[in-house]
Amino acid sequence: MKTNEKKYSTVHYQQYLALDELLDAQHLRSEKLQKEPAHDEMLFIIVHQSYELWFKQVIHELESVMEMFNQNNVDERSIGVSVARCNRVGEIFKLLIEHIRIMETMTPLDFLDFRNLLFPASGFQSFQFRKIENMLGLKEDQRMTYGNHHYAAFFSEEEQKELDRIVKEGSLFDLVEDWLERTPFLQFRNFRFLSSYRESVERMIAKETEAIESSDYLSVKEKEMRLKMLGNTDTYFQSVLDPEAHAERLASGQLKLSYKATLAALMINLYNEEPILQLPYRFLIALVDIDELLTTWRYRHAQMVLRMLGKKVGTGGSSGHNYLRETAIRHHIFGDLHNISTLLIPRSELPVLPEAVRKELGYFYTVAKETES
Amino acid sequence: MKTNEKKYSTVHYQQYLALDELLDAQHLRSEKLQKEPAHDEMLFIIVHQSYELWFKQVIHELESVMEMFNQNNVDERSIGVSVARCNRVGEIFKLLIEHIRIMETMTPLDFLDFRNLLFPASGFQSFQFRKIENMLGLKEDQRMTYGNHHYAAFFSEEEQKELDRIVKEGSLFDLVEDWLERTPFLQFRNFRFLSSYRESVERMIAKETEAIESSDYLSVKEKEMRLKMLGNTDTYFQSVLDPEAHAERLASGQLKLSYKATLAALMINLYNEEPILQLPYRFLIALVDIDELLTTWRYRHAQMVLRMLGKKVGTGGSSGHNYLRETAIRHHIFGDLHNISTLLIPRSELPVLPEAVRKELGYFYTVAKETES
Amino acid sequence: MKTNEKKYSTVHYQQYLALDELLDAQHLRSEKLQKEPAHDEMLFIIVHQSYELWFKQVIHELESVMEMFNQNNVDERSIGVSVARCNRVGEIFKLLIEHIRIMETMTPLDFLDFRNLLFPASGFQSFQFRKIENMLGLKEDQRMTYGNHHYAAFFSEEEQKELDRIVKEGSLFDLVEDWLERTPFLQFRNFRFLSSYRESVERMIAKETEAIESSDYLSVKEKEMRLKMLGNTDTYFQSVLDPEAHAERLASGQLKLSYKATLAALMINLYNEEPILQLPYRFLIALVDIDELLTTWRYRHAQMVLRMLGKKVGTGGSSGHNYLRETAIRHHIFGDLHNISTLLIPRSELPVLPEAVRKELGYFYTVAKETES
Amino acid sequence: MKTNEKKYSTVHYQQYLALDELLDAQHLRSEKLQKEPAHDEMLFIIVHQSYELWFKQVIHELESVMEMFNQNNVDERSIGVSVARCNRVGEIFKLLIEHIRIMETMTPLDFLDFRNLLFPASGFQSFQFRKIENMLGLKEDQRMTYGNHHYAAFFSEEEQKELDRIVKEGSLFDLVEDWLERTPFLQFRNFRFLSSYRESVERMIAKETEAIESSDYLSVKEKEMRLKMLGNTDTYFQSVLDPEAHAERLASGQLKLSYKATLAALMINLYNEEPILQLPYRFLIALVDIDELLTTWRYRHAQMVLRMLGKKVGTGGSSGHNYLRETAIRHHIFGDLHNISTLLIPRSELPVLPEAVRKELGYFYTVAKETES
Repeated sequence: MKTNEKKYSTVHYQQYLALDELLDAQHLRSEKLQKEPAHDEMLFIIVHQSYELWFKQVIHELESVMEMFNQNNVDERSIGVSVARCNRVGEIFKLLIEHIRIMETMTPLDFLDFRNLLFPASGFQSFQFRKIENMLGLKEDQRMTYGNHHYAAFFSEEEQKELDRIVKEGSLFDLVEDWLERTPFLQFRNFRFLSSYRESVERMIAKETEAIESSDYLSVKEKEMRLKMLGNTDTYFQSVLDPEAHAERLASGQLKLSYKATLAALMINLYNEEPILQLPYRFLIALVDIDELLTTWRYRHAQMVLRMLGKKVGTGGSSGHNYLRETAIRHHIFGDLHNISTLLIPRSELPVLPEAVRKELGYFYTVAKETES
Repeated sequence: MKTNEKKYSTVHYQQYLALDELLDAQHLRSEKLQKEPAHDEMLFIIVHQSYELWFKQVIHELESVMEMFNQNNVDERSIGVSVARCNRVGEIFKLLIEHIRIMETMTPLDFLDFRNLLFPASGFQSFQFRKIENMLGLKEDQRMTYGNHHYAAFFSEEEQKELDRIVKEGSLFDLVEDWLERTPFLQFRNFRFLSSYRESVERMIAKETEAIESSDYLSVKEKEMRLKMLGNTDTYFQSVLDPEAHAERLASGQLKLSYKATLAALMINLYNEEPILQLPYRFLIALVDIDELLTTWRYRHAQMVLRMLGKKVGTGGSSGHNYLRETAIRHHIFGDLHNISTLLIPRSELPVLPEAVRKELGYFYTVAKETES
Repeated sequence: MKTNEKKYSTVHYQQYLALDELLDAQHLRSEKLQKEPAHDEMLFIIVHQSYELWFKQVIHELESVMEMFNQNNVDERSIGVSVARCNRVGEIFKLLIEHIRIMETMTPLDFLDFRNLLFPASGFQSFQFRKIENMLGLKEDQRMTYGNHHYAAFFSEEEQKELDRIVKEGSLFDLVEDWLERTPFLQFRNFRFLSSYRESVERMIAKETEAIESSDYLSVKEKEMRLKMLGNTDTYFQSVLDPEAHAERLASGQLKLSYKATLAALMINLYNEEPILQLPYRFLIALVDIDELLTTWRYRHAQMVLRMLGKKVGTGGSSGHNYLRETAIRHHIFGDLHNISTLLIPRSELPVLPEAVRKELGYFYTVAKETES
Repeated sequence: MKTNEKKYSTVHYQQYLALDELLDAQHLRSEKLQKEPAHDEMLFIIVHQSYELWFKQVIHELESVMEMFNQNNVDERSIGVSVARCNRVGEIFKLLIEHIRIMETMTPLDFLDFRNLLFPASGFQSFQFRKIENMLGLKEDQRMTYGNHHYAAFFSEEEQKELDRIVKEGSLFDLVEDWLERTPFLQFRNFRFLSSYRESVERMIAKETEAIESSDYLSVKEKEMRLKMLGNTDTYFQSVLDPEAHAERLASGQLKLSYKATLAALMINLYNEEPILQLPYRFLIALVDIDELLTTWRYRHAQMVLRMLGKKVGTGGSSGHNYLRETAIRHHIFGDLHNISTLLIPRSELPVLPEAVRKELGYFYTVAKETES
């Protein structure tokens, strides 16, 4: 056979998708162990198999994004591709969330028809899911134990090594942090981002304070409340303006993102409409989206477990509902990117970019002009 | 080992879900045949594998419903179970529709990276999908050819036999038709549904006609339009009141549901709030939902193909978009149940059920009273 | 004009929907108070107006359901109608949850363009939303304060009275509790539900304990875990079997649903496939669905606030994110219906209904036979 | 009062959202004209009012995008903003599609309780919807008549003028066409897009033809089919390579997008990963998304009408189902952008961009380097 012609070998849908294997992989324990199979065990299996198929896809996407960011100079074309792939991961999580509606068509009584047979299998044994958490950057010290077990206790030695490797080699969180730290815009020609921003913040807070205090509109109580709001805001601003305060909060685990990366993320947020920053901004948003969708999935999962089991203990030996609900609250990975919002100031107060800088952050018009000549 | 104790054999998530097989079933042709794999072929495979997993679940549900209806006296408990399972099928189709959004994250250019390698594989070769169509009751004469091929031409002899068997043994459509024909309510004590309904319809149309003609409000043109609307309505009513007209429309293929089953479905719709009819009504609605969702999935599929390929010919050798769009319009299976709506009349015009009949169509209060004594 | 002919007065889409008023009700404060309007304030207004329109619809549905349940003998036809209307409320909440995705298309920076102008308006001032909470049955002692304010502090005297009235006259929770308490099935002919259920539970637990202890399969540790699971289950069972334990938990606020209503709900769950119980069961499920969707909406709302504001204080003067997140966890209204699942036992262990009872809980076949004669 | 302090005037949720007007705008005709109101008329009104609120938002977004494109040099920052706003319009249409599920909770019988009272009001009288169609660029000659009426016949003179004005001043379609025509990249330094593309296409087709013909793998029939596929493809390529063929198809109405704009859109698609083209590409995609979602809404609307009315004639005097179904097929506005997919060739066959051109289409790395010095 001519090597370069292999591509004309034909293929049938059935073989291409390995349907013989795929559709023969549903083994109902109730069929094997009981007099009659439990009708809804099929649904239970299919839902979880579908989850795992999609986890494989999520890993495929994250791996490719991590590869693109795992170098000193992230190719400019990679940002757009990464945005698209992270958005796809987001769409996949939306689909996973919808799976729960289908699972909820199973009644608690239907579940009891086979639940006893599953012990001690549990979703906590999903290797791919743990891998996704580690790839995204969930830190060991954020993790909750489940039934007093370390999260990795359920896995083979080889799998544990793989989970460790990811942590060691660096998660997407780590890679994004590195990339942000390398952002060239913080000091750009004659523009110093931090000092300009600091002045704006101070001016804004002074102006607001004066306006509130002198207002004829607001009641004393309202003035108090607004000044308190302003005070809280001020505290947050101080912490980002002061590298030492930041370092303390990093050390105590309140923050995870480095000072320099935080500044870069802040600048990208504040000037997100500048052409050169549009895609980096969309990339940061895509990460926040993934975080939000993943925690929503955890939350919905917790609700579903409550509905199925009430306060019964899960097959894995712990209260599934409480565990899941806690992870829905605690397991934010890109929380520091969410919190950038605390530091934003209105466009009207934003330091104006020097003309030379703005020009360089743009490109379209310039190029157009050049080619016209 | 004690036989009755087998259920305490333990099981791990990974084995239970056959993850080794499942997650090793993605074979990228671009990896095998090209210098480098096409990143998005993984997505293409996963989406289709997920479809097939869910098709298996749909078949599992439909089979169980068909078994319950495949007997002379459908157990009264089965109606409720059937409603729940058909609603689940509906939820599954909603999920399948959402898959298309994920597929659409693939750009047409990404698709071209591996499209050539798939020839002549095509979704038209999905055996499970054809099986679902036949189980629901898609008739041979409704089917469109695809690239001049009979729909079954793509399958093995064994598969073709299975597809034929379903047609011969009777689809869900057939079973529902039989069940409707056996409905005992059409002639109930001293209540004759058809004649009562006929009188109501005639009285209603006469009253409306008189009111329109004598109205001071309507313009001549508006009167004309309303009388025309009424006339059209009248024609439909006649066709259901007249068994011969119905027979003709059956023969010509305009209708598929028998006269008697149509009357029963009509009665269930008109008196759907009577306790005994509430679940039968929900069952009919669930079938209409499935029909609607399945055609929506076809429609969205057609859109997605258009976006990917424009007017290119599909790997199966025909214009995928046009084929799919046509099936989205033509392949209604329970269209005659949709059309029951044409025959409905306002509650205010409905023949009043004799007290004795109403009592028997209810049950709750009666039972409650008995037990109080 | 003839009175009985008024219905032929014609109407135009625009007047019918009061579009002149509706589409003239968007008053951007940024347009009035700033040099130039903030583009995204329109979105902010439309989203909240859409919420309020749908709240009106939810109130309309809940009022009608409450009216049907506010009588000693709930008409048997009302159950089906109530299921349909509660399901509709569920669909509406699904739509409200989707609103948040649209709100999230607004960037935090876009929000800052007008956020300052909104003080102190806040979603906590939505009268209709508080009304819905009270109608469903959120108890005063479950409520969190917001910025140290009683939830009703934001409303006019008249509105406060209305909120109180609902609490006094009885919420949907109260009405459902009453209705459950009146259920006639708990003692039915020679069948005593509670004692039969108690025997089954005890037999099941004994059998399980014996099987676990004598198992050759399980390790010592696994035995321990399974016995612990069983022990926990046992505790829950005891609490429902013992009216005094139930009374204590009611008094301490751990439970809200009365002993008798809990038993009735349990029986409806256990025998939900009996024809006469199918719709009551669906009604209970519909309430659980509403609860779940409402808390999901709260959760998603909390996420959205986090994304917009980070840790900034909300216009209402308190941390919106934390408040909302807490309500998403604490404000379960029908939690005791969720927890019925704790008390379920497998169908295989269920007390068999005496034939005479089963017949009476069914009806279809019987009626069919009668009419054939 | 100090003018510059007005912003501290306070505002209450209720006034801000004009809730008094908004929640008093639901006037049930069944309440006015019948003995008792029809419960579901409220839902009917709320759904349509919600549609109209969202239409207002869609118009707000489209107006802003059109303004940004209505100038000779579209500011480079505007592209990103336009993508975001068009994506928002897409999200809104997704929400509108979900409204139909809620409408479908109304049974046909419920609808009949008030349907007669609505004559001749009809969704075809929605001015805002027609405005959206015209703003997007639906052409007069694409429109179907409804009940023999011109689409604008239902509106006031003033409204008709407004609809005409949009057509005359140029739709979004027109503005995008202009913008594409001005794209500077088609002739860029020493790179001539059209001739490079032509050569690639010809080389690709020749290579494919040779490979198919000499294949040992394919059967005669399969060869025939693949050559036919190739032939069809060839025809499409010819039509875009030949300005005269394009002009003919424009004249006959088969195409709407000019030759030059088509070439620009093709180039943006083919090189969509080049940094400078990423956002223009996303903008084109966003338009295709809107088109797809709008037709899906039409399709779902058609289904819902079928379910409600069967083959009854709509209150507007014509078969709503058929009309809507046809518009779901015919009313593609950006169909020519969909069809760009027909003209794409695999990346492996793509003309390589000269290094100088690629550099100029990128920017990130370059800038980064400059600032390091």
